[in-house]
Amino acid sequence: MNPSALRFVAGNGLLDRRDFLKSGYSLTLATAVGLSAAGRILAETEPAMPAWMTSLGTADTGYGNPSPHEGQVRRQPRPSTPQTAGFSIWHSPLQHQRGIITPSGLHFAVHHNGIPTIEPERHRLLIHGLVERPLQFDLQRLMRYPMISRIQFLECAGNTAANALSPTALDGDCQTLFGQVSGSEWTGVPLSHLLREAGVKPGARWVICEGADGGSHSRSLPLAKLMDDAIIAFYQNGERLRPSQGYPLRLFVPGWEGNVSVKWLHRMEVSDSPAFSKDESGLYTRILSDGDILAFGFPMEVKSVITHPSGQQLLPELKGFYEISGLAWSGQGRIAKVEVSADNGRSWAPAQLHRPVLDKSLTRFSIPWQWTGTATTLLSRASDEHGNIQPTRSQWRSRYAAHSFNHYNAIQAWRVRSDGAVENTYV
Amino acid sequence: MNPSALRFVAGNGLLDRRDFLKSGYSLTLATAVGLSAAGRILAETEPAMPAWMTSLGTADTGYGNPSPHEGQVRRQPRPSTPQTAGFSIWHSPLQHQRGIITPSGLHFAVHHNGIPTIEPERHRLLIHGLVERPLQFDLQRLMRYPMISRIQFLECAGNTAANALSPTALDGDCQTLFGQVSGSEWTGVPLSHLLREAGVKPGARWVICEGADGGSHSRSLPLAKLMDDAIIAFYQNGERLRPSQGYPLRLFVPGWEGNVSVKWLHRMEVSDSPAFSKDESGLYTRILSDGDILAFGFPMEVKSVITHPSGQQLLPELKGFYEISGLAWSGQGRIAKVEVSADNGRSWAPAQLHRPVLDKSLTRFSIPWQWTGTATTLLSRASDEHGNIQPTRSQWRSRYAAHSFNHYNAIQAWRVRSDGAVENTYV
Repeated sequence: MNPSALRFVAGNGLLDRRDFLKSGYSLTLATAVGLSAAGRILAETEPAMPAWMTSLGTADTGYGNPSPHEGQVRRQPRPSTPQTAGFSIWHSPLQHQRGIITPSGLHFAVHHNGIPTIEPERHRLLIHGLVERPLQFDLQRLMRYPMISRIQFLECAGNTAANALSPTALDGDCQTLFGQVSGSEWTGVPLSHLLREAGVKPGARWVICEGADGGSHSRSLPLAKLMDDAIIAFYQNGERLRPSQGYPLRLFVPGWEGNVSVKWLHRMEVSDSPAFSKDESGLYTRILSDGDILAFGFPMEVKSVITHPSGQQLLPELKGFYEISGLAWSGQGRIAKVEVSADNGRSWAPAQLHRPVLDKSLTRFSIPWQWTGTATTLLSRASDEHGNIQPTRSQWRSRYAAHSFNHYNAIQAWRVRSDGAVENTYV
Repeated sequence: MNPSALRFVAGNGLLDRRDFLKSGYSLTLATAVGLSAAGRILAETEPAMPAWMTSLGTADTGYGNPSPHEGQVRRQPRPSTPQTAGFSIWHSPLQHQRGIITPSGLHFAVHHNGIPTIEPERHRLLIHGLVERPLQFDLQRLMRYPMISRIQFLECAGNTAANALSPTALDGDCQTLFGQVSGSEWTGVPLSHLLREAGVKPGARWVICEGADGGSHSRSLPLAKLMDDAIIAFYQNGERLRPSQGYPLRLFVPGWEGNVSVKWLHRMEVSDSPAFSKDESGLYTRILSDGDILAFGFPMEVKSVITHPSGQQLLPELKGFYEISGLAWSGQGRIAKVEVSADNGRSWAPAQLHRPVLDKSLTRFSIPWQWTGTATTLLSRASDEHGNIQPTRSQWRSRYAAHSFNHYNAIQAWRVRSDGAVENTYV
């Protein structure tokens, strides 16, 4: 019951997790309930029995939906892009989510040409080019191959672009600033099965993967990666892909920028060179500070963000206990460590990594925090198993030209004001 | 390309997984595509460009939904129970699912009194009885406690009751026979935090947990288990609980029969003894073969089922390659092994356990199978890390009275007929 009995592990109130959990320390967040001498709960503290306890409930349905009280938890379109069709971007509400699974209905989406309305029985996957046997699959036959499942993240190359580009920190919530990353269990057929069956010819190095959307979104991908761990995904979180995620099938390329996991995949052409398509020569490149262009830089970098508390949230009490919780991920492998600072980087403490900590997956971290009520800045800094670590914003910006925005992964800072408001900031 | 080059690991076509994956063995499930001398795809094998490739797609939405082509993938109510309100049971479509996550909209449900329409801002959780400080929580304060997440299964005590009770194997699909088990990522506050804060008095051994539904469904649970690993769950698969799953909060008791994970939880009374409520003295007991009653037998036993192929499915070709895939789980811990037989139990081979293999979670298993086309019976037999193993149906039935049906976990058998039809059977 006495905060002074707690062990602080870094400045401004970061608490030792094990100490905290075992201490029996009371958060005293509850309301004490008055009891009469007879031990019965006193009437004035006992709420009147609500209507839902004095009547039969409603019927269930074949496919359940969220509570109408959670109607604000929705994907939000990025206002700067048209949302009806063509190019559009939808952000996940990270500040309303917990754990590492994103519900399929809230998974972020980037569409280059809207969502095609595909008749699954007419959809075909063609593998041709530098192969011994060009092959064509319908869904029924394709889904008889052995399948594997993986819980992994998907992130758009342009996620958090506003923090890369804007000279001052834009006011925004976690959804607006970070919402182009999600995590799901993806299930499908390893592409290596299909490529082996087609018989890749000597000299083949690339595969040009094309979607069946109106603009035939396509990307060139190294054959070695596709043989290593890419899958033809049919299922997301246990059910068939949503139309927004590529129904009836998509490519899923673990750890790499989202646009190469081509949705509505219908054609793969094995080749000795990339296609140098418009998107891969333009939109999905980076411009280095010396003016050089970095193309085909696929893996997403190690990154993290505190989701609770985060931008535009309001801490309901102006001092006391809060759990700091967030997400970390790396396109190179497993997250090894997330450090948190509650004093704008002067001191850091390791957060708890919640199990399971999986390869190329969202990883949940948390650390208990006793807020003193003074304004401060919260930071998180992730490292992966290969020693990659998030740079500061100025380190990131020194590498790239001023107008380059893809693959931004700098340490995120949230300012907590003394009135409890949380806002995006640069440090 | 030559099946004779494959290594068989058990009778009737079960294949060695590693051998199979590395062999480059072609399943030849694809259609070879004709090429002209110039290497272009011949027109007669190239499908006409479908309409969805020659137009802009449709807009996305704030909350996504499954494809209308998957409308048959729904929970099904058990016909013998009224579905409008009161007691009702909804089964998950296991035969349409892959991986280990059940989408929240397809999670099985058993309601004792329909779904209460709770206003979350008026919902309270009360902890009273043998405690130093009776406590009452509103949602805002309760959700400030540290949270944890776990991917775990939930199974109804009465799942697969038809196979326990019916003297002949009823015709049914996997959903009808096994659909009262699902797996999700559950996130919430460890109950131990709250009970410590309330201060459990000496002599306390049980906690009577009551829901805010119209019938106040309640169960008595051992204090030790609630202090060990139970949580107050707010989130399922990354978003707030669906109303069908207890919105705004439920108890989640890992590995134990589903009805004790009380939905819409609003009251916990710490006590020295169980309440011996109607349901815990009747519906959720087992009757042993000597007539004794087994009450408060909470953990669900080790169990497995092959979901592909399973009851009422039709193998589309009358010989050739199929992947056998299914789910295993144990309320006692991790799954250690699943053995599969393709010759009605004469020989067995270990299936692959797909990672992650988690504590008290659904675990996906699979094994490649070269079907000769003759009628046969497929079996799966799971073991957990504590050496528990599934019994045969006759072993299970010898333990219980003829009309006892809870906690049925015998080895499931699917008959594959020579016409490709799959049906429920007893062995």
